[in-house]
Amino acid sequence: MPSQMTPAQQTLIDAVRSRFGEKAVTTDPRDIAPWLNDWRGRYFGASPAILSPASRDEVSAIVALAHQARIPLVPQGGNTSMVGGATPPADGSALILSLRRMNRIRSLSPDENLAVAEAGVILPELHDAALSQGRRFPLTLGAKGSATVGGLVSTNAGGTQVLRFGTMRSLVAGVEAVLPDGSVHDGLAALKKDNRGYDINQLLIGAEGTIGVITAASLRLVPAIAARAVAWVALESPHAALALLRSIDMPAIESFEIVPGDSLALVLKHIPGTRAPLEGVHPWHVLIEAVSSEAGGEPPAALLERLLGPALESGLVQDAVIAANETQAEALWRIRDSLSEAERASGPAVQHDISVPVSGMPDFMIDGAAEAERRFPGTHATAFGHLGDGNVHFHVRAPEGMARDLFYAELAPSITALVHDMVVAAGGSISAEHGIGQMKRDELARLGPASRIAMLSAIKSAFDPHGLFNPGKLVLAPTANTP
Amino acid sequence: MPSQMTPAQQTLIDAVRSRFGEKAVTTDPRDIAPWLNDWRGRYFGASPAILSPASRDEVSAIVALAHQARIPLVPQGGNTSMVGGATPPADGSALILSLRRMNRIRSLSPDENLAVAEAGVILPELHDAALSQGRRFPLTLGAKGSATVGGLVSTNAGGTQVLRFGTMRSLVAGVEAVLPDGSVHDGLAALKKDNRGYDINQLLIGAEGTIGVITAASLRLVPAIAARAVAWVALESPHAALALLRSIDMPAIESFEIVPGDSLALVLKHIPGTRAPLEGVHPWHVLIEAVSSEAGGEPPAALLERLLGPALESGLVQDAVIAANETQAEALWRIRDSLSEAERASGPAVQHDISVPVSGMPDFMIDGAAEAERRFPGTHATAFGHLGDGNVHFHVRAPEGMARDLFYAELAPSITALVHDMVVAAGGSISAEHGIGQMKRDELARLGPASRIAMLSAIKSAFDPHGLFNPGKLVLAPTANTP
Repeated sequence: MPSQMTPAQQTLIDAVRSRFGEKAVTTDPRDIAPWLNDWRGRYFGASPAILSPASRDEVSAIVALAHQARIPLVPQGGNTSMVGGATPPADGSALILSLRRMNRIRSLSPDENLAVAEAGVILPELHDAALSQGRRFPLTLGAKGSATVGGLVSTNAGGTQVLRFGTMRSLVAGVEAVLPDGSVHDGLAALKKDNRGYDINQLLIGAEGTIGVITAASLRLVPAIAARAVAWVALESPHAALALLRSIDMPAIESFEIVPGDSLALVLKHIPGTRAPLEGVHPWHVLIEAVSSEAGGEPPAALLERLLGPALESGLVQDAVIAANETQAEALWRIRDSLSEAERASGPAVQHDISVPVSGMPDFMIDGAAEAERRFPGTHATAFGHLGDGNVHFHVRAPEGMARDLFYAELAPSITALVHDMVVAAGGSISAEHGIGQMKRDELARLGPASRIAMLSAIKSAFDPHGLFNPGKLVLAPTANTP
Repeated sequence: MPSQMTPAQQTLIDAVRSRFGEKAVTTDPRDIAPWLNDWRGRYFGASPAILSPASRDEVSAIVALAHQARIPLVPQGGNTSMVGGATPPADGSALILSLRRMNRIRSLSPDENLAVAEAGVILPELHDAALSQGRRFPLTLGAKGSATVGGLVSTNAGGTQVLRFGTMRSLVAGVEAVLPDGSVHDGLAALKKDNRGYDINQLLIGAEGTIGVITAASLRLVPAIAARAVAWVALESPHAALALLRSIDMPAIESFEIVPGDSLALVLKHIPGTRAPLEGVHPWHVLIEAVSSEAGGEPPAALLERLLGPALESGLVQDAVIAANETQAEALWRIRDSLSEAERASGPAVQHDISVPVSGMPDFMIDGAAEAERRFPGTHATAFGHLGDGNVHFHVRAPEGMARDLFYAELAPSITALVHDMVVAAGGSISAEHGIGQMKRDELARLGPASRIAMLSAIKSAFDPHGLFNPGKLVLAPTANTP
């Protein structure tokens, strides 16, 4: 909820208003309210004001003032965090630092395949700008048109196109940021080689605004898509899916998403207008997208036919269909993108965004699901998503008839602890693409190892000794909020 | 030179010998001597002993002992640093920590396109191991067969194949390291997605052993080369070369090295058995290598012909030849790889490994060279190398007849300061691929900006508060060597 202002906060807000105008300050509780909670409705914060600088220098000045007054700031872009990473603390001690007014694309060079976008640019705008120059920014998310460049960089976002071009980390050529004391890091120059010591840009990517706030990024572009084809393939197991991926692995394959049979059944049951892509019932499916970037090469549909033919003949693939047109292709993607919605319609579930080494993923999907169901009788565990990235969304649905509140309060934390323990045992990560935020902070600390947590704390302390940037997220500052 | 031992050093050495055997300790001055100087003969250090652990756990134990005794360590692989990065301090205070006994390739999976190599594995061994499995580790250096994996990772090495596959940073999928207190960072698991906070692996890559010593790395492999073709192309200017690169930019093009006419002339004059690839004299040249990784695709020579044809017709290219066989291809590469040797044969020169944004490089090459020659009459400035990476080696030769010592003592530092100032003005980096070491440490501090140096110092202090790891390199520890 909007909260009472302390005198120090009032002084800061007055200074910002007088230097940068009314647009830079929001104090009406009705305008603040939408930005105090995460969009999934799990975290509820409080803050008396949103500060909205319009330029890097305004960010720098505001941060310097907040630093002097020891007032914490919560950087915020589209507020689409999956882990409560942009929600202010509930005690009202922090102000929200919105980057949404910094929404210019400063430059876009098709020759250099680079765009420089400010933190507040939303992803669809970046896509459109690149497309207008015959280029593409290849990172795409399933939903949420409001995710911003600053948030995407700060969380090293992933998505459904990582297979070929990698996560944000691979797509960021330079970073501009303001540090907790107000100083500016200008790392925007897109140098392909730069060995001047510790890579500050890499440190800021994925740091969730806890040691610096991203104000702009240089982003790599790739050639625009000339044509695409989408196939829906039925297989016996995740092992068969991985074998298929390895047999067809080439740059034209941009997506390879695995979907269990029962998840497909939920979509067909709950999402109006969907229909099964293949006849019969199959235990596993993959959605494969192939693209071509220049006219004249092998058409993607022909490529998929050529690649899938031998797999059908050998029995590795049970059945397959290639979308005959864009409408059919969209229908296949709609199934993939509706998995979470269909699951929500069917009852409560606890979700985990996890990764393990790719080669270990098929075993993890089968054995991990079986173990979760064994340990928590009546639950139903499924995993789906980015098999080729070693990243699935591992969901455990509540036992039939169990009350929602009881499930989330009593069972879900134990289920999560089990899933995370299994991930660690498999050499994986408890956060593949969503980050840590406040949701996974304590689990990260629990699972360590201690040397990793010590390093995270040491970095946090070195950059933000007073614990002023995005307090309570990722890792606790050892000396949080000391004056 | 080998130096006298302090009692604390003696105690440490005795402990290492008793726990890990004679092989783990070298104290004979004759055996130590070759490892006290850099291979270019610029830096001369002293140390009473080399410690040579054979495993990660031995490294960890030795580092913990040194940490307790506050004895500095200088990690060393092949000792091929170009910037004095592996030479111990001259006061004998540090011991050398050699990783050369850790020379196993722990695993190599062609399915996963991954190899896990220990720090002491030398690059040719890694190449051979990958090749034996139908794969390739694509980073190659001009010379020096003794560079090790640990050094390559610690310096984020580059080379002549960066255009397609990037520097070491792009090729490292995981890092194992021992931190200054002896604790182990196990980041070897090759997770394609891992968002558990600040990326420790990225921080250790390129850190020059100042905050941790790399003990092993997971490395990405790519398909082996099926065929290659090499072209030698004459052009009017670096601008024409960049225009050519952009017109032919595609994955098959792996090298694009620019060579000025006068550098070619020096090679032809000083390197026996070399001959001009083209008739006539041309102001600029590029060497282009195209490869194919699977039989059946367009042969690289045909590809180069197809790509270069229009450029010849339009006049962008003055003349071009494609090597008809491997012998001719090797002869073209020999010219490129002999540039530094030919220059050395012609007299003293001061060399700079610098980068600027790719689009700014042609202007920098022309204007920067003219400015250097204007400011230092009689000198001759040339730049050659990795145009497509925005990285050239910018060399300034002494005025004819000037004594070597006079040039290096009097003129060279001023020339270097000018070149670095021009690089900073162009938004570039004073170290593109060689690192900072001790050679560029003070220039880095001079050129800042202050916020960058403050961040480097903060990181160094956070990881190595006592200044025990590779002292004097990269950035000075604020509290170096306090007990």
